[in-house]
Amino acid sequence: MTKKILITGAAGFTGLHACEYFSKKRYHVIGVARKQISDQKWQMEACDLLDKERVYCLFKKHRPDYCLHLAGVNSVAQSWSEPLSAVNINVIGTLHLLEAIRQFNPDCKVVVTGSALSQSDHPYAVSKFFQQKLSLEWGRLFNLSIIVAKPSNLIGPGPSAGIVSVLAEQIVKMEKDKKIEPISISHLENKREFLDVRDAVAAYEILLNKGAIHSTYEIGSGHMNTLDEVTRIYQSLTENELTFLSVNANAENPPDLMDAKKMKELDWQPQFSLIESISHILSYFRVIH
Amino acid sequence: MTKKILITGAAGFTGLHACEYFSKKRYHVIGVARKQISDQKWQMEACDLLDKERVYCLFKKHRPDYCLHLAGVNSVAQSWSEPLSAVNINVIGTLHLLEAIRQFNPDCKVVVTGSALSQSDHPYAVSKFFQQKLSLEWGRLFNLSIIVAKPSNLIGPGPSAGIVSVLAEQIVKMEKDKKIEPISISHLENKREFLDVRDAVAAYEILLNKGAIHSTYEIGSGHMNTLDEVTRIYQSLTENELTFLSVNANAENPPDLMDAKKMKELDWQPQFSLIESISHILSYFRVIH
Repeated sequence: MTKKILITGAAGFTGLHACEYFSKKRYHVIGVARKQISDQKWQMEACDLLDKERVYCLFKKHRPDYCLHLAGVNSVAQSWSEPLSAVNINVIGTLHLLEAIRQFNPDCKVVVTGSALSQSDHPYAVSKFFQQKLSLEWGRLFNLSIIVAKPSNLIGPGPSAGIVSVLAEQIVKMEKDKKIEPISISHLENKREFLDVRDAVAAYEILLNKGAIHSTYEIGSGHMNTLDEVTRIYQSLTENELTFLSVNANAENPPDLMDAKKMKELDWQPQFSLIESISHILSYFRVIH
Repeated sequence: MTKKILITGAAGFTGLHACEYFSKKRYHVIGVARKQISDQKWQMEACDLLDKERVYCLFKKHRPDYCLHLAGVNSVAQSWSEPLSAVNINVIGTLHLLEAIRQFNPDCKVVVTGSALSQSDHPYAVSKFFQQKLSLEWGRLFNLSIIVAKPSNLIGPGPSAGIVSVLAEQIVKMEKDKKIEPISISHLENKREFLDVRDAVAAYEILLNKGAIHSTYEIGSGHMNTLDEVTRIYQSLTENELTFLSVNANAENPPDLMDAKKMKELDWQPQFSLIESISHILSYFRVIH
């Protein structure tokens, strides 16, 4: 029987991959985005998660088997300029979703995507901490089937605002313009646990099907890489000679590796190497530019 | 120089005591309640904390030196029937207040009153946990002067919905009606750390003046008493023969005693014994009935 999955944040980087992935796997996908989007291969609904009544209607109308909650503010800069808005969207938006499920669709299994950030250095991190904690509390208080997924740094083809994509876009622009300029970059030595977004989406499917409710799952590649290593991979994939201008930035505490043991017990393994992901990102920008 | 203090929840049990206390101590008191209240000896403003713009106006207009934030949902039953509303009022209402202070009145010193509840057994406790944690995070992120106070079980004369007041009201009603009926009561053996509301308000003043910002202070009497002991005190203060009908209720885990060491280092000591508090509660109901 076809399972119905409602995916929030469906116009975003991960959301687009998730809609495509679950459609291909023959789920009935309902993508939810703030604004109406047409011409997708899957059903779309427009809904602002801050509009409680609209969220309630969404679940009353569709009663999905699964919900993958990807929507939210994910910009640190925006969270500094509009901190209240970050908390409202990430926490209260999530709560509207959980309340809709509690009241109208209590058998729906939900994956809420949290953040790998372990520190609370900015309002974004604080909002994600609260989102995760509140989701688990709500699940426990009202016996809802809620799982929290904490992915590491997601990369891959598509409209990502992350640094790995920003680099690719600049490299492809130079290829097209036949003009070489140094690329400004900060944090060359800081380490990140990059994970292909498609590996993350596959993990979300496993969690929706087999994850233990009230649990948190960390999802990561198991490898730390510096941006310097990323730039060297880009160099191996373009004929231009790349030069980088290192911009000063505050030193960061290195993040911890995700503990993906529980994911591996569910037979999940990342499929994309860092080189494959980066090569696909470059191809994506070469096609769209 | 007269210090200006804005007190939210000014129509509530603790709020009324706080307004009276700070007025007597010659602070300029601005009491804030959801609905307009006249005939108070102090200035009152009507403001729903969920109305962000109204909250901003309040702080732009008054720019208080201190803010004592007492407003919020404090009913466990209401938090079960309207969980979203409990989180909205306690968390987002508080955030509106902190945002007003951050933007228009960053030197204001704030005491946010949390809850002694250490478990998250109901939406009320969850909302109070988030309120406290978010207040401290906001203070730290934006360098605001925020202190969290965690009082134990407050009792005292005035419009309290707590069990100690409910008992007094029934006892006084029997005195007036000259009719004796058994009083239903649950949790006779459960222990509570009762503290007089006036002692708590005195502690809040000390915290506003001398408390260390970004800190949490527990405020308690240091004594655990059962409701059975409370009923025996009531018996000693009324001429009627009291009988109690013990109603079954789920057994509770006994709460921990508050750790008031940090308060004592600021020279705070409770002034009211349990017998004094109970005797004043009884007098309060004898006068108003």
